[in-house]
Amino acid sequence: MTELIYEQPLNEKIRSYLRLEYLASQLHKSLTQDTQQHSFYPLFSLCELTDRCDYRSDVLKDIDRYIITLSKWLELPHVDQQQINEFISRLSAAKTPLQSPDRIGIHLKKDKFLSALRQRFGMPGACCNFDLPQLHHWLAKPWKERQLDLQCWVDQFQPLLTPIGLILELIRSTSDFTLTDAKAGFYQGNSSQTLSLIRVKIDTTQECYPTISGHRNRYAIHFVDFDHQRHTDKTIQFKLATCS
Amino acid sequence: MTELIYEQPLNEKIRSYLRLEYLASQLHKSLTQDTQQHSFYPLFSLCELTDRCDYRSDVLKDIDRYIITLSKWLELPHVDQQQINEFISRLSAAKTPLQSPDRIGIHLKKDKFLSALRQRFGMPGACCNFDLPQLHHWLAKPWKERQLDLQCWVDQFQPLLTPIGLILELIRSTSDFTLTDAKAGFYQGNSSQTLSLIRVKIDTTQECYPTISGHRNRYAIHFVDFDHQRHTDKTIQFKLATCS
Repeated sequence: MTELIYEQPLNEKIRSYLRLEYLASQLHKSLTQDTQQHSFYPLFSLCELTDRCDYRSDVLKDIDRYIITLSKWLELPHVDQQQINEFISRLSAAKTPLQSPDRIGIHLKKDKFLSALRQRFGMPGACCNFDLPQLHHWLAKPWKERQLDLQCWVDQFQPLLTPIGLILELIRSTSDFTLTDAKAGFYQGNSSQTLSLIRVKIDTTQECYPTISGHRNRYAIHFVDFDHQRHTDKTIQFKLATCS
Repeated sequence: MTELIYEQPLNEKIRSYLRLEYLASQLHKSLTQDTQQHSFYPLFSLCELTDRCDYRSDVLKDIDRYIITLSKWLELPHVDQQQINEFISRLSAAKTPLQSPDRIGIHLKKDKFLSALRQRFGMPGACCNFDLPQLHHWLAKPWKERQLDLQCWVDQFQPLLTPIGLILELIRSTSDFTLTDAKAGFYQGNSSQTLSLIRVKIDTTQECYPTISGHRNRYAIHFVDFDHQRHTDKTIQFKLATCS
């Protein structure tokens, strides 16, 4: 049995955070495993997203907000004070790198090698050696050398990616999974609190995946039969967590 | 010492063939090795290119032309008759699958799973599980199962990719590599015959890559120093093949 977790953000900010977190996980995979030219897809996606939007002020505000929340938690009985204090330190430490005057990823824009690649990467089949001979040369370098290059490029985004990872970890920790049924493949719920993230854990043997929609206090989950690519009529057992 | 081969097409048709061949090699890699969602990039690039242009008539004309050329070669002395005959059979066998009335890749267009993925794949970071829960489900399937799906999708393009591979093999066989010098990183040449492909083989320890330009009978090769991303002044030793 394999259980998969599907997540749905209920607001635009969390949507962006999840997207950046996903790209960070892809990049970290490409640091440990030689994925050849594929490592450039998440890198250029990060460049594109951070070009379009400067997430720093949102993240800084969130860091401050969570530091205050966590400090309040410290006053509650039966809490793990050490764990909370550690989290507060990690959040505080993430602030300084974000306060640099340089925009995230700006140094990669000045890199001639990356700029040439980025221009072409969106085109179909544009990584041929006649399109990008420099890529062909780079890919032939020893993996250790390429790993160092990749690490150096990924490091540019780390000031943004580290706190986003911490914030999402905190958001996910606000709710545990509860076993739930979706009769005829459908479930809807609401909450008195404003929610930011819906999480669905499902056993893959049911051959279904959820499509989740929602906003603030309400959400609906439809389960789709993968083989027929349409809504299932079966009752689906799943685990649900609604995070605020 | 690692030697790398760089190729430059001298006409649009060979440019397309090389691009399709590159995508075919990427797809075949993803059939033997689990490259996760990355296998969709070459697949969708192939969909895109074959949507834009129907290469079949060009390829069919080339097959006929090469069958005639090879038949003439058979009359020459000291040729490997068996090898030539085998090549003629492989080219002839590649004709029938190309003559099907259905456009290449048309069946993939009707596939709901692939269509949903393809719409999103060009967007930055759009493979998150909230964007494409169906992809998340598919990626959790056993590799053997996904391999069968991939094989089935790749097979759709095989009628086009097989003869293109054969044609490029023939074109490459028209010239052997000769050791050459590029004084101050520059070389230019011309040929009485119309050329279709320039090939440069270079030892990677020279830390240079070639940028090649040309048309029909003339071509020029500039060697670029990778670290400085600019033209090198050094004398570069390389091997050159000019294929017609």
